[in-house]
Amino acid sequence: LDSGRLVPVRRILKSLHPAEIARLLESLPHNERKVVWGVVDVDDQGEVLLHVNDEVRAALIQGMSPEDVIAAARDLDIDDLADFVDDLPETLTEQVLRSMDLANRQALEKVMSYAPDTAGGLTNTDTVTIRPDVTLDVVLRYLRLRGSMPDHTDVIYVVDRYGRFIGGLSLERLLTHDPSERVADAMDTELEPLADDLPAREVAQQFENRDLISAPVVDANRLLVGRITIDDVVDVIRDEAEHNLMSMAGLDEEEDIFAPVAASAKRRAVWLGINLLTALLAAQVVGLFESVIDQVVALAVLMPVVASMGGISGSQTLTLMIRGLALGQIGGGNTQSLLKKELAVAAINGVLWALVVAGIVLLWFRNPTLGAVIAIAMIINQLFAALSGFGIPLILRKLNIDPALAGSVVLTTITDVVGFFAFLGLGALVLL
Amino acid sequence: LDSGRLVPVRRILKSLHPAEIARLLESLPHNERKVVWGVVDVDDQGEVLLHVNDEVRAALIQGMSPEDVIAAARDLDIDDLADFVDDLPETLTEQVLRSMDLANRQALEKVMSYAPDTAGGLTNTDTVTIRPDVTLDVVLRYLRLRGSMPDHTDVIYVVDRYGRFIGGLSLERLLTHDPSERVADAMDTELEPLADDLPAREVAQQFENRDLISAPVVDANRLLVGRITIDDVVDVIRDEAEHNLMSMAGLDEEEDIFAPVAASAKRRAVWLGINLLTALLAAQVVGLFESVIDQVVALAVLMPVVASMGGISGSQTLTLMIRGLALGQIGGGNTQSLLKKELAVAAINGVLWALVVAGIVLLWFRNPTLGAVIAIAMIINQLFAALSGFGIPLILRKLNIDPALAGSVVLTTITDVVGFFAFLGLGALVLL
Repeated sequence: LDSGRLVPVRRILKSLHPAEIARLLESLPHNERKVVWGVVDVDDQGEVLLHVNDEVRAALIQGMSPEDVIAAARDLDIDDLADFVDDLPETLTEQVLRSMDLANRQALEKVMSYAPDTAGGLTNTDTVTIRPDVTLDVVLRYLRLRGSMPDHTDVIYVVDRYGRFIGGLSLERLLTHDPSERVADAMDTELEPLADDLPAREVAQQFENRDLISAPVVDANRLLVGRITIDDVVDVIRDEAEHNLMSMAGLDEEEDIFAPVAASAKRRAVWLGINLLTALLAAQVVGLFESVIDQVVALAVLMPVVASMGGISGSQTLTLMIRGLALGQIGGGNTQSLLKKELAVAAINGVLWALVVAGIVLLWFRNPTLGAVIAIAMIINQLFAALSGFGIPLILRKLNIDPALAGSVVLTTITDVVGFFAFLGLGALVLL
Repeated sequence: LDSGRLVPVRRILKSLHPAEIARLLESLPHNERKVVWGVVDVDDQGEVLLHVNDEVRAALIQGMSPEDVIAAARDLDIDDLADFVDDLPETLTEQVLRSMDLANRQALEKVMSYAPDTAGGLTNTDTVTIRPDVTLDVVLRYLRLRGSMPDHTDVIYVVDRYGRFIGGLSLERLLTHDPSERVADAMDTELEPLADDLPAREVAQQFENRDLISAPVVDANRLLVGRITIDDVVDVIRDEAEHNLMSMAGLDEEEDIFAPVAASAKRRAVWLGINLLTALLAAQVVGLFESVIDQVVALAVLMPVVASMGGISGSQTLTLMIRGLALGQIGGGNTQSLLKKELAVAAINGVLWALVVAGIVLLWFRNPTLGAVIAIAMIINQLFAALSGFGIPLILRKLNIDPALAGSVVLTTITDVVGFFAFLGLGALVLL
């Protein structure tokens, strides 16, 4: 690439899937990314745009002419197109809509009317539907006439004449049952459709629990809206898991790793600013005890140990809770037993490591009182850490704040403040 | 449940899918879990065991008779059975193997000969295969005769008479093409099979990139081993993402949230012990500067601020790297530009927040020299934090250590040590 020869690049790109090209683009610095994007086949551009993260997509679209954007959008599935159009500037959205035929435009407008993180927003309107009163043989002939089926069609949906969902006929049954059988007899009536307002996270859980490839989506009147396919659900699962990981460090999972330095710095500055406020709060607590530190400098030496041990075990409980909440493992009846368990674990580890640290302090500073002070402070802080790691995500969720995002900042503030206060406060009481 | 009436519980369980029952069991404390497990339908037990995490599974199996375990194992797919058997005690494994017929036992032994985190270990041997020289009509009749197909069959595999993989015939083509066409003409020869030794992570990437429902697996001689289906791949994706989240807090993603207190405490004690060693190292650094702290107590008040700001921005870079490595975004050509970018972001935020903190310190302690000292120390620590967050995962990966597991401990050690050293060291030079 550095040598500026593009022919081999074009050949390599030809052999890659759009998602692979997307990943490649994401992992290129801006200049090289622009060059490679210029060589991507026009037919692949739509799919590639779909697979890069939001930030990279916005940057790529900005460099395209309206005609190219419309061309890229042409071959996308309706649900993917809805995501795509969501990120376009207003004027471009209109141009794309005007370039579509009426049926597709109506389908797109329907999908766009749903929030992107609901079943409706994940729905693809391109489905094969049949009536219950025909034979399988008619269906077989219809499909041959049709010539193709939408990607990932494993079940054909059976609807009544108003378009209401009745059941599903799997390709397996279509292929293995007697062709003279009626659809009504061969179809699976236990196939439960998903409501169009079901949150995306629950859609993903349904797919995982029921090992689905696709699922029908219906509106409040049981009218078939379309279907959700596993590939979009995999994206939901991946995004959700990454969201938790990235949020705990105050990052956005849609961030371009090669975002301009200024943009990255600005975003991360917010998180550092919040952390500074909490660190200053902890410093204030230390400041309260200046006089005792002045007389027993060992307290200053040891205070980071107390705070850090609390931070570690608190973040263990916090991570367990955030993941448990995301998986729906925690709620209602079991929270009390979980709290008891976490407190018991904290108590055991608190006492264990308090004794170890007390021993070390005794050897290091030859001061048994100081050893006792740090031991007690550590036990107190471990218990508060478990309590905070347990309680913070539950409270944040009640307040409709993302526990993964705010949890770790609040937690370390508490473990720092409690740790310093307990250790230096006890020190002031006992050692002065 | 508390009232001890089991009839309604049984009715509720009947309406749940095995994966949902598994999640329910995971979220119950031990006593209730045992009661509910006793009511789970025998036919569902195998699937439920498969879906609970390793630790819960081991506990449930321990309470079952060998006959019940064999009954539970009976209906599982071969690849799932391989996972299941892997976790059984040796004597039980033998009994399960002996209860199977020869063909199944050989298939199971083949799958078990692969490492669980390779394509071979995810492979299900139950596939529909056809020969290239017959017509689609023959295939249609064969399927009707067969009466059923394995779950998630979207493509039928075409093999030669030695069992070597030649191509795939999708059900879509089978249904839409002319029945008089030969399989050889209708099949997709571009369908690339996966090698049986491909790591599970790369299998997942292939599925995501190519939007696959299933993929054929072949051995080194291109003999068809079986196929991998999307449901197992979703588990791989979920596990991998959770592994990163949990590892960063020193937790195991297969841990039972209701594990006995003693077991949990023991596991977490290890992480706390490692952290204690690193915290003591940081304390040692502070100890070097006891005399300067003794004279300028404000240093003790402010030192946690320097360390914590470094820790936060270091962990942002670290998280970005761990995720980038997991996604295959980072490697080879782009590391240098990434390092430059991270250092630039750190420099900008370092200077910005250093100035803010210097201002605050000036107002608080009325000591301009102290303000200058903390500002310079912060900038130094931010740069080291970016460098560590960038370099540690790359080095750990080179050493074949999981970057997610060890990264955060190493990182905070460095930011603490560098932060204390820079701040107190500069303080000693300038303020004494």
